[in-house]
Amino acid sequence: MSGHASGERPVVETLLVVGVGLIGGSFALAARERGLVRKVVGVGRTRANLELAARRGIIDVATLDWAQAGKGAALVLLAVPVNSVVPSAKKLLGCLPEGAVVTDAGSVKGTIVQEMDELLRDSGLRFVGAHPIAGTERSGAGAAEADLFVGKRCVITPGATSSPEAIALVRGLWERVGMEVVEMPARVHDRILALVSHLPHMLAFALIEAAGFAHTEVGSPLGFAGTSFADATRVAASPGEMWRDICLANRDELLKAIDEFIGRLNEIRRNIDEKDAAGLEKLFAAARALKTGGMHG
Amino acid sequence: MSGHASGERPVVETLLVVGVGLIGGSFALAARERGLVRKVVGVGRTRANLELAARRGIIDVATLDWAQAGKGAALVLLAVPVNSVVPSAKKLLGCLPEGAVVTDAGSVKGTIVQEMDELLRDSGLRFVGAHPIAGTERSGAGAAEADLFVGKRCVITPGATSSPEAIALVRGLWERVGMEVVEMPARVHDRILALVSHLPHMLAFALIEAAGFAHTEVGSPLGFAGTSFADATRVAASPGEMWRDICLANRDELLKAIDEFIGRLNEIRRNIDEKDAAGLEKLFAAARALKTGGMHG
Repeated sequence: MSGHASGERPVVETLLVVGVGLIGGSFALAARERGLVRKVVGVGRTRANLELAARRGIIDVATLDWAQAGKGAALVLLAVPVNSVVPSAKKLLGCLPEGAVVTDAGSVKGTIVQEMDELLRDSGLRFVGAHPIAGTERSGAGAAEADLFVGKRCVITPGATSSPEAIALVRGLWERVGMEVVEMPARVHDRILALVSHLPHMLAFALIEAAGFAHTEVGSPLGFAGTSFADATRVAASPGEMWRDICLANRDELLKAIDEFIGRLNEIRRNIDEKDAAGLEKLFAAARALKTGGMHG
Repeated sequence: MSGHASGERPVVETLLVVGVGLIGGSFALAARERGLVRKVVGVGRTRANLELAARRGIIDVATLDWAQAGKGAALVLLAVPVNSVVPSAKKLLGCLPEGAVVTDAGSVKGTIVQEMDELLRDSGLRFVGAHPIAGTERSGAGAAEADLFVGKRCVITPGATSSPEAIALVRGLWERVGMEVVEMPARVHDRILALVSHLPHMLAFALIEAAGFAHTEVGSPLGFAGTSFADATRVAASPGEMWRDICLANRDELLKAIDEFIGRLNEIRRNIDEKDAAGLEKLFAAARALKTGGMHG
C-alpha cells in the first residue's frame, strides 16, 4: 500500500472483499474503475456468486479458501451481514499480513466495534468500522454497480485499533468512490440509524401485518391499497433473517426509537380521540415542514 | 341522460364538476375523451384554477355562481375535500333538476353518506357515495390527466337515496374510465381505508417527527436517511388541513387501526426486548409473505 497523504490518491495493492454482494461488489467495481486498487480477491460462501463476480470483472481471484484469501491483503472489506462480521474476521485472523487494515459495511456499529477491538487487540491488525449508507432491495454480485455510492453518506466509527493512517485510508477510499464521509462514535451512529432506518423497517413490518391480517366483509384490505401503502411497506419484502440480526445487534437504540415513535403516534392518536382539530393541524404542519425542509429524498 | 343498461355506454348530457382539481379534472378529461359526457361545467372557489381547467379543455363552462352551475346538471361530481362535500351539496340544493344524481370522491364515506341521506331525503335527488382510489401528491387542474384511474379500484357505498339506476350510472362511468368498481357498506370502506391509507399517513407524520426532532452530537438524524426513510415519509408532505379533516371524519375506524398497528409493533418490540430471534424471524417472514404475496404495488 502506498502512502496517502491528504489529496494524494490511496492505492491498495491487494483488496480482499469478504462477501462479493451488492455492497462489496459495488465497492470493488468502483475502486477498480477509479484506479484505487491493483488486485481484488473475493472470498465468500457460495461458488456461484464468486464465479459471477469474476465473470463480471469485479474480482481477479475467487476463492473459498479463507487462509489463501487472506495472504497479502493490505485491506479487507467485510461486506457481510452484521452477525457475520466478527466471525469472518476470526476466520482470517493469523492469515493476514502485519498491519493490514480491516473495515466493514455493517449497518450496526456499537457491538461490531466492541467485539473487533477485543478480537484484534494484540494482532497488529487495524479495524475501522464503516457504514456506507447505500443499498437497494437487490443483492448478490449481479446487483453490484460502480456508481452505487455516489452522492451518498458513509459513517466511519473508529475504535481502539484504528490508527490515524488506517482511518485516513478507509475515509479516502469511500470519498473517492463518491461518498461524503462523516466520523462519529459508534453509539451515535447506532442511535441515528435506529431512527432513520431500523425503525422504518419495523413500521413497514407492523403495518403490513396490521392491514394484511385484518378481515373485512369484502376480503383483505390489501386489495384496496394505493401508492401511500405501497411506499410505506416497500421494505417489508426485505430478508427477515437480516433484520432479525440487525434488531438484536442494535437492540437498545431500536427499543428507544420504537418508544419515541409510539410517543409521537400516541400524541396524534390523542388529538384524534379528543377531536382536537387545531392540535392535529399543528402536528401535521410540523411533519410537513420537516419533510419539505431540506431533508434528503 | 340516456338509458344505460349493462354493456350500453352511459352518456351524461351535462356533468357538473365541483372542484376541478386532480380527481375532478381527471374524471372530466377521462369521461370526455371516452365520449361519456356531452358538456362539462366546472364550479369552484378560485377563478384561476377554473380558467386553467377551461384552457386545458377539461371544462366547457367555468363559473363561480353555484345557482347557475347547478342548472341542467344531470350528474354532479363533488370532487372536494371530505369536509366540503356536504356543504357543497347544500349550496346546490334547489338549483339542480329533479332526478339529478350526485356523487363524490371523498376518502371517508360513513359520515358523508349519513349526512347526504338526511340532506337529500325529500329532495328528489339521488346520492351515490364513491371513492376512486387514485391520487398523487399533485393537486389542481394542472395535475389532471385522463388516464389517472386506469387499472385502479373505485369503491361505491350506496345510501338511502341511491336508486339502482343512479348506482348503475355512477358505476358505469367509473368502469368506463378504467376502474374496477367494488360496492360495499360505507363502514366497511372506512375500516379498510383507515388501515391501508389513513394509518400509513399517520405513521409517516409520527416517524418524521420522531427522527426529525431527535438531537444527536452530529446534528439531525435526517441527514443520514436513505431510501427506506424517504419512502416511509413521502406522504408526510401532504396538506395538513386535508388530513386533519380525514382524521376527524374517520375518527372511530382510524383509532381502531392505530391501536391494531401499535399492537403489532409492540409484538415486534417485545421480541426485540426479549432477544427472541426465532420470534422475530417468524414475524418478519409473515410480513414478507404478505408483501410479496399478490398485493398491489
